[in-house]
Amino acid sequence: MSQTEEAKTVLPLDEVRALAERVLEHCGYASAHADAISDMLYRCQLDDCQSHGLFRLFMCATTMKDGKIDGAATPVIDSSDTAIIRADARDAMSLLAVRDAMPELISKARRFGMAALAVNNCFHFSALWPEVEELSAAGLAGLSMVPSHSWVAPAGGTKGTLGTNPIAFSWPRRGKDPFTFDFATSGFARGEIELHKRAGKPLPEGVAIDRNGQPTCDPEAALDGAMLTFGGHKGSALSIMIELMAGPLIDDLISLESEAAAGRPGCAPYHGQIILAFDPEKFSGGRVAVNDERAERLFADIIGQGARLPSQRRFAARARNLARGYVEIPTALHRDLLALMD
Amino acid sequence: MSQTEEAKTVLPLDEVRALAERVLEHCGYASAHADAISDMLYRCQLDDCQSHGLFRLFMCATTMKDGKIDGAATPVIDSSDTAIIRADARDAMSLLAVRDAMPELISKARRFGMAALAVNNCFHFSALWPEVEELSAAGLAGLSMVPSHSWVAPAGGTKGTLGTNPIAFSWPRRGKDPFTFDFATSGFARGEIELHKRAGKPLPEGVAIDRNGQPTCDPEAALDGAMLTFGGHKGSALSIMIELMAGPLIDDLISLESEAAAGRPGCAPYHGQIILAFDPEKFSGGRVAVNDERAERLFADIIGQGARLPSQRRFAARARNLARGYVEIPTALHRDLLALMD
Repeated sequence: MSQTEEAKTVLPLDEVRALAERVLEHCGYASAHADAISDMLYRCQLDDCQSHGLFRLFMCATTMKDGKIDGAATPVIDSSDTAIIRADARDAMSLLAVRDAMPELISKARRFGMAALAVNNCFHFSALWPEVEELSAAGLAGLSMVPSHSWVAPAGGTKGTLGTNPIAFSWPRRGKDPFTFDFATSGFARGEIELHKRAGKPLPEGVAIDRNGQPTCDPEAALDGAMLTFGGHKGSALSIMIELMAGPLIDDLISLESEAAAGRPGCAPYHGQIILAFDPEKFSGGRVAVNDERAERLFADIIGQGARLPSQRRFAARARNLARGYVEIPTALHRDLLALMD
Repeated sequence: MSQTEEAKTVLPLDEVRALAERVLEHCGYASAHADAISDMLYRCQLDDCQSHGLFRLFMCATTMKDGKIDGAATPVIDSSDTAIIRADARDAMSLLAVRDAMPELISKARRFGMAALAVNNCFHFSALWPEVEELSAAGLAGLSMVPSHSWVAPAGGTKGTLGTNPIAFSWPRRGKDPFTFDFATSGFARGEIELHKRAGKPLPEGVAIDRNGQPTCDPEAALDGAMLTFGGHKGSALSIMIELMAGPLIDDLISLESEAAAGRPGCAPYHGQIILAFDPEKFSGGRVAVNDERAERLFADIIGQGARLPSQRRFAARARNLARGYVEIPTALHRDLLALMD
C-alpha cells in the first residue's frame, strides 16, 4: 500500500495530548515531563508534522527503557547577571527545562536586547520550531541549534562525525503566522529516513553514504552508514558551527559524544541546546513599526514571484486541524502507539 | 590566456597597504577611512583572497564617483546599557565604524556573555572574516551577516530579491588558526562572477538565471538576471534570515532597497551589518579548557577522515606570503589599479 493510500485514524485534538500523556506516564515519565513532552508532540501533530509528532513516542519509550534518562528530574535554572540563562535538565528530556526557563529568556532578551538559553545535560528528540515560535509570539526573533548523534559526514568525509544539527529561526509578524524555518543541516532529516524505512521507500540521491563511504538510497544502509549535509561545503561548515555553538560554547557534548552518553542505540541523543532571543524593539531603537513594514515588503516580493515562505504547509495544516478539531494519523502508527501500553 | 598562465606582479606587503591608501586618498577618501579600508584589503590580499583584496578598489572608486557616499564622515558609536552597540557609519564605508566599535563589542561580550554590534547607514563591500577573526583573536566566537543588492532569487522564484547575504563565523582555537568560514548564501560569490566575467570564463551550472528566469552559465547574463542561493530552499531560508537580522532587526535596509540608496549601478551596496560576539568563558561557566579539548576532538575527527576545515587554503596563503614578504597579483589588475590614479 502506498503512503497516499495508507489507512488513517482520526484523533480529536484533546486525544492527541491525552494519548501522548498516557503513553509517557506508562513508560515512566513523571507528570511534569509527560505534560511538557505531550505539549511538544501535540504542537507538531497539530501541524501535520508526522516525523516529530506522536511518532516520536517510540523514541521516548526506547530512551526510558534503554537510556540513562531520569524521567522525574526537576530542572535547575541558573540566571546570573549576564544575558545567559543556564538550564540544567539533569539527564531528563530537554522540554521541561526549556519550558521552565522560557519566561526568563524572554525577560532577559527585553532587558539586554538579546539573551541566550543554554540547556545542559538533556536528552533531545524534538522539533525546534515550537520553541522559536514561542519567542516570536512574544515579539522576539528566535534562533535555536542542537547537535545530535554523529550520523552525518562532513563535506569531503567518509563517516559520521556531525549530528543532523538542525537550526531553527522565527521572526515575529504582526497579525500573521511568523516567518519560521527549522531544518536539519543534513540533506535529509533523520526522522524522514526513519519514516522512509517504515514505508519501504528509497531515499533521494545525494543524501547518504553507506558504511563503506559509498552513496546509497537504501534507508537501512543510510542508517548504518552516514548522512551527508545539505549544500556541500557550506552546509558542512554551518553544521560544524552548530556543533560548536550548542556544544563546546555551552560546556556540553558534541555529536561524537552523544550516543555513548545516551544509552543503547535507539535512544534520543544526549547533549545541549542553545536558544538565542533578539528583541527588535531594542535593536531598532524603538522603530519596530517601520521595520515590520520593511520585512513585509520583503515577504511580499518573495510571494509575488511565486516563491513560498517556509512553514506555509505547516501553518495551513494547523489552521485546518484547529478548525475541524482533529488530526489524522496513520492507523498503523495509532495501533503501534497503543501497543506501547500493553 | 587561461587564469593559471596569467602574468603576475609581485607586491611587497608594505606596498599592498600603501597602494590601497594612495588609490583611496586619490579617489577622495579621508585618511582615517583610507586607513581602515586599506587594512581590510591588505588582510584579504595577504590571504590570496583575490575577489575581496585590491580588486575591490574599483568598487571603492566607483562608489566615490557615482554613489551617495561620504568619504570623510566620522562614525558615531552609541553604547547603551544593553548588550547592543550601535555604530552609525553616517553614509561612509562600514570599516571605520566597525573598527571604532570593536573594542566595545569585545568588552560587552565579556561582560554580558554575548553582545551585538549593529552598524547602520553604511556602504559595504568587504569580506566578513577579518572582523569575526578579530573577535576570535580576542577569545570570542563571532558571527556576522550582511545583506547586499537584490541580486539573488529566493528558492522557487524568478528574480532578484535577496542579497548574496554572506554569513561568517569564527571560533577561537588556542595556538592555532581559528575555525572560520565566510560564505555567500548565493550559490556563487558576486565577486567570483565578476572575476569570471573579467577572465571570460563560464559559470558552473545551477548558480544563476538570466533576466527571463532561465538558467545561464554566462557571467554577463547572470549579472543582468539573478543568482540562485546555495542549498535550495534551506539556503534560501537562511538568506531570508540574514535579510531580517541585518536589516529590519537593526532598523536598516533590505537588499531590495540597497541599490537605489547607494547611487548609480556599480556602487557598493548600502545597508547595515550585524556582528554578534559570544564569550565561551561566560557561556561555559569558566570551563573553556575542557571545551577547547572537546572542539579539538571534533576538528581532529574531521581532518582524520580526509575532510578539510574551511579557510585552510587562506591560512596557508597567509603563512606563505608573510614568510616571503610579498603577494602576487595579476599584472593586469595592477595596471588597472594604477590607472585609477591617472
